[in-house]
Formats: sequence, structure tokens, C-alpha cells
Amino acid sequence: MFYYKNNELYVEDMKVADIALEFKTPLYIYSKSHFETQYKKLDEKITRRHLICFALKANSNLAVINTFAKLGAGADVVSAGEIFRAKKAGLDTTKIVFSGVGKTPDEIKYALENNILMFNIESFEELEEIEKVACLLNKTAPVSFRVNPNVDPKTHPYISTGLKKNKFGISHTQIVDAYKKASQMKHISIKGIQFHIGSQLTDVSPFFEAQIKVAHIMRELLSLGIKLDIIDIGGGLGVVYENEKEPDLDQYANFINEAFKDFPDSMIVLEPGRFLVANGGIFVTKVLYRKQNEGKNFIIVDGAMNDLIRPSLYDAYHKIEPVVKKNAKKITADIVGPICESGDFFARSREIDSLERNDLVSIFSSGAYGFTMASNYNSRCKPAEVLVDKDKVKLVRARETFEDLIRGETI
Amino acid sequence: MFYYKNNELYVEDMKVADIALEFKTPLYIYSKSHFETQYKKLDEKITRRHLICFALKANSNLAVINTFAKLGAGADVVSAGEIFRAKKAGLDTTKIVFSGVGKTPDEIKYALENNILMFNIESFEELEEIEKVACLLNKTAPVSFRVNPNVDPKTHPYISTGLKKNKFGISHTQIVDAYKKASQMKHISIKGIQFHIGSQLTDVSPFFEAQIKVAHIMRELLSLGIKLDIIDIGGGLGVVYENEKEPDLDQYANFINEAFKDFPDSMIVLEPGRFLVANGGIFVTKVLYRKQNEGKNFIIVDGAMNDLIRPSLYDAYHKIEPVVKKNAKKITADIVGPICESGDFFARSREIDSLERNDLVSIFSSGAYGFTMASNYNSRCKPAEVLVDKDKVKLVRARETFEDLIRGETI
Repeated sequence: MFYYKNNELYVEDMKVADIALEFKTPLYIYSKSHFETQYKKLDEKITRRHLICFALKANSNLAVINTFAKLGAGADVVSAGEIFRAKKAGLDTTKIVFSGVGKTPDEIKYALENNILMFNIESFEELEEIEKVACLLNKTAPVSFRVNPNVDPKTHPYISTGLKKNKFGISHTQIVDAYKKASQMKHISIKGIQFHIGSQLTDVSPFFEAQIKVAHIMRELLSLGIKLDIIDIGGGLGVVYENEKEPDLDQYANFINEAFKDFPDSMIVLEPGRFLVANGGIFVTKVLYRKQNEGKNFIIVDGAMNDLIRPSLYDAYHKIEPVVKKNAKKITADIVGPICESGDFFARSREIDSLERNDLVSIFSSGAYGFTMASNYNSRCKPAEVLVDKDKVKLVRARETFEDLIRGETI
Repeated sequence: MFYYKNNELYVEDMKVADIALEFKTPLYIYSKSHFETQYKKLDEKITRRHLICFALKANSNLAVINTFAKLGAGADVVSAGEIFRAKKAGLDTTKIVFSGVGKTPDEIKYALENNILMFNIESFEELEEIEKVACLLNKTAPVSFRVNPNVDPKTHPYISTGLKKNKFGISHTQIVDAYKKASQMKHISIKGIQFHIGSQLTDVSPFFEAQIKVAHIMRELLSLGIKLDIIDIGGGLGVVYENEKEPDLDQYANFINEAFKDFPDSMIVLEPGRFLVANGGIFVTKVLYRKQNEGKNFIIVDGAMNDLIRPSLYDAYHKIEPVVKKNAKKITADIVGPICESGDFFARSREIDSLERNDLVSIFSSGAYGFTMASNYNSRCKPAEVLVDKDKVKLVRARETFEDLIRGETI
């Protein structure tokens, strides 16, 4: 949905330059059609009964959540704040799965009051806490356990989550005990099993490896009389940032069918985040200044690491192109923001069209883990977000103001 | 100002446990006396005429800025948002120096309207922009140039800023040309020179190396008839996080006197941030759950990387201790937050007292680059901040609410 026509970047039917003029920079621009297309693409491939729970951590803007909610999506949330967002966005809370290693008692209460689909429990102590809170509310908590299958997803260490050295889930050596314990609790209703081995996987074979392990656990549980209605296969489907290959969705769907063929009645829950939104967003920023330090070129733009931290935090690659291509000569430059640390960069030693002051540049694949990770570092106001739907553009989050920076502070 | 008495952690005259009970966790707690002590310690060592400009990026809470403002401090700011904060905190704007590689035209205008002390200019194009904006406002802009002296501060790559490969300043090979150019501009008034080679330096000798280079440039400028009223020696003084040695302030002061002895009339501007505030703050968080995955211990607390990103972003060490010591046996554990990525940790494989659920832990040295880098990742509300003054504790920033998370958003 992002393409060049006559050397000008478009999103759907709109010129990016026009949008940037109206809403100023730095600016996140999302494509509603891209979100819908990705959702439908995945939805159609999965032939078994399933529920796609959008992982809100990737992009929790209310308008984005609402887009998926309208298509029937549920939500994978990791905090009460995300449950609140899902509700505000009109998402049916009975389609919410609540993941995460550190659910507080207040969050558990909030989730129970909102009748979520299930908790993905990550520790024995969490199980006890959920039982306790459910008891106090005189409710039954629907739960699954997140198993840590110890499978290497071969991705960035910070986003690999299914190794035994990671904090996530319950070890596959302890998982059966967890179910046994839960089955004896009065306020716990066992719903399913969950796993998630990491993020940004473009090779789907590690998923299969984990699925096989999980199916094995399910058979063991069945022999103990514990039948699971839900198989939550987590998220992790990757996208193309640079020159990765797209994950093979047919193979992905086949793996699911194959791994869980002994459990035809269970519903598959998927938790995609990045896959649905990463390439549906760009971050548009304007060139402020150019400089040369002893032969090294710097392009200083008005966006910074507080707006988009992925290059700095994960050394992540984002394609960067001018919004209007002028067939300028190529230079090699660092593209950096105004923040006062050397970690504030979008690209280093990148070959890019020579740019002039006030030129706009698009940082692609910024729809996931962009705005959700934004901060106010250096007392910078968070950028605005707009959602484009064909020839319409809507401000879905206003740019912050100075007053927003100090809200709640007193001398 | 943070100490244990009968195995209980105090800040000034208050028990940390009592404060955490009242204001909940996760929570930033600052010591006003520590801030004042550090300021005075530095202020007394510098024997020449000087102005300490607190680097707001380290901790821009209004009450913290106000604490320094009352002692006579100026401010080193890097955005219009920080100028706004300084004003709100009652700091005299004529004591503000405005640093940073990416000042926007609007920010320059705002700074001129507020009659700041000077702009630290980082590129030729910025000089042109400041001249242009000053002309439009019919004002004269007071400026210094930031010279990049190409000195290795031997610190973390992200916070080293004085190497030629860094985006900061104007190369020492071009700096004289910059002054020549500025001297011919109608709306520019040359005030001084600035440099800043990096952050968290505990060995002060790289400062001297840079100072000698800068003094050399000043002599060259003097021979061209350009006399500088201000020598801004930047910040970068380190603190003790783990087992570093304290920077030697006597040596630091002697270096300044020695390097700039030919310029006795110039005022020294210092831009300390971390030095003034890092060890004046702790981040208090509560143990939610403990778990073991195949022999590896995890302590899951209610604070996370969105609250304090330094361990994740810089692999920074922070001392972590229980708020109440129970002489428990030591274990080796990862101390992690609830956020759904493996990068969400405060310490890995750390030897620590065995903790129980609901125990409080203090993450020390969190007064700098703590709250200012906080985000709402995972839709988590930013924590509260309190300032302790002897036996008084004041909420200086309220904990965010769910409504804060979605402010400005529409479906």
C-alpha cells in the first residue's frame, strides 16, 4: 500500500508529502488496507477453527485495534492497560488472551471483571495468585499454561522467548505438574495450552518443532484426563524489513494441521503482531541539517530514537527512502536524530539519495514496535499518528504538546 | 542519603518501605539533599567564575530542576520542551544553554523569545538557520560553537560523543571557519565555545586532552580578533554505579585552571547531568513472582524496561538490594520485568538475597536517565516520582492512569 508513482511516495490513494504537510513531522502514517489485507491473508490460510488475537504490544493505537476488531479479531494483551485499550477500541473482551510473566493482582481482577477468554499462565506462583483473586471475586478463571519448549527461534536475543534461559513460560519438564495442580483448584478452569518461541521468524520450521513438542504434552495430558479446548500457538511470524524471505504461510498452516491432527476439535489461537502491522506503517521525518565531519556525512532529521527506538535498541534495519525522489546522486551517510546521544540513529553508513534541507524521508516498516515504544526522552513530544483509508486520512492520535510533558508534575 | 539501618533501607530520614506503601510501586524516589550536596561539591571545587548548567536530559522532573534552580544553577537543554520545563520550574531562562544537533526553526524561535544565554551550534547549516530566525524576529542570537575535538572518552559507544565518527559538533578542522562566518552575520553574537566528549567519565584525563585542544583553538581565534566570553566544557562527569572510582574533582578543577590559564576572564560553563542526579534516585519495585526454569532462577518484579531502560539499552549495571534485608540465603537469579521480551531485565545472573513475593527491591543509581527515558511500552502507565526532603516526602509526579495512555487518540 506504500508505492512510488512519478517518484512520489503514496500510501493507498494519498501522497505522503501532502499528509506530512498537513500533519507535520515527525509522523507515523498507517495504511488501513494493509492491515486488513494481512489479517485476511493469514485468516484464509488457517483452515482449522481459529481465532486471530492481534498482539496489541506491536501497535496499540485505538484505530488500529478497531480495524482488526471489525474483522473479528481478538487481542493478545500483556497488561491491564492493553485490556483497557481493547475495550475502548470496541473489541469484544471475551476474545482477549492475557499473556505475560508479571500480571499483578489488580490486573488479574480487571481481566476477570472483563470476562476475558483466558489467562496464559507463566508460573506456578501466578496460578496461585489467579486462583486467589478469582476466589475473592467468586469467579472461575479460564486459563492455559504457557510452555517454554526450549526451541531456538534463531532471531535477535531480545525477542527470542522460547529458550530455557528466557524468562517465559513454564519448563516443559514441569508443565504436566502445572496442569495437575490447576485441575484441583476450585476457581480455575483449564482451557488450553500456549507457547511463543520468539518474534520476527521468517523460517517457519522452528514453529513446527515447538508444535510437535506441544502436541506431545497434550497427548500426555489427555492420558491424564485433561482435554484442552484451545491451542494457542503464539505469534512470531516475521515480515520483510530488508531482504528476508516472507514466511511461507501455506507451510505454516500445514504444520499446524499436521502437528495437531490428533486434536481436531480444539480451537487454534494465533497471536500475530508484527506480521499484521509492521509493513502497514511508515515513520516520516524531515531533514533539518546536513553536515560533514572529516569526510563522514550526517543527515540530521526531526525524528529521533524517542519516536522509533528499534535501530538503537535492536540494531534493527529499516529501509529509508526520500518521500520525493529527485534522482539525486547517492551518498553514504548516517541518518540521525536530534537526541543527545550517539545511539540516536536510524541508519549508519547507509547509501541514500543525497538529501536537502526540508526534504522528507520515509522510514519504512515502522507500523510495529514504533509508536508503542515511543518515549519523551529529551522532553520531546510524542509524534502524531494518522490512518489512511484509500483517499481519506484521519488523525488517530494527536501530536503531544508541552503541557502533556509535565502533566501530573508539581514543584 | 540512601543507607541501611537495622537492615531497612532509608532515604534521608524516611523508610523506603513506608514510602512505597504510600505511593505504591513501581516508584522513583529522589533525595533532595543528595542533589544539593552534589551540586555544592562541584560548585565549590571550581575556583574560576562559572555557571553550572544542569543537563535536564538526565532528570527533567520539575521539582528536581527547581532544586537546582534555587541553588543558582542554569540549564543545559536539548529541546524546546526542556526550555518549557526549565521555565515551569522557575529557572532563569537567561541561564539556559541550548545544545543538540537538530534544533528546529520553531525551537530556535522559542529559545530566542526566552532570551537564553546561548545556542551551542553544531553545524554550518544550523548557524544559517539561527541567523535567519533571529533576523525574522529582529533579534541577535548569542552563540557558541560545539567543537568535536576527536578525543576518545573510553565509555559506552552510545554515550561517547567527541569522536569524529560521532554526529556531534563541528570538526576541529572546520571550527575556525565557522567562527569567521558567524562573525560576519548581522544577527549572530559570538559568545563562546563548547565541547562535550561523552558521558559517565570517571577518569578525568580525557577532559584535559580535549580542553588543551580547545584552548589551542581559542588562541587561534584570538589571533583573528575573536575573543570568547564563555568556555563551555560540557558534562560527562561519571558516578559510581558498581566499582568505578569517583572522578577526582580536584584534578578536574586543576585541569580547567591549567588548560584555560590564558583566558582568565572567560566564564566556565559546566553541563553536569548524571553527576548531579544519578545516585540521588532509586527505583523501587515489588516482587510479583519467582520461578525456576530448569535450574535458572527468575525474580519477576512489577517494574520493567519501560520504566528504566538502561540495563536493556546500554547493558548498564545497577546495584539491586532488598528494601528490607532478612539475612536470607543468596541465590543467583535474573531480575526481570513483566514486559514481553527477553530484553526486559534489570540484572542477569545476579547474586542476590533470596526474595519472597511482595518483597520490595531497590534499584540504585536510578536518578539519571531513568524516568526521562520511560515509555508506555506494553501500555504500561509511567511510574510515580517522589522527592524526599529530610522527613518529608512529596509526590512530584503522579502515576499515570489508563486515561493518560489513550489521550489524543480517536478510533
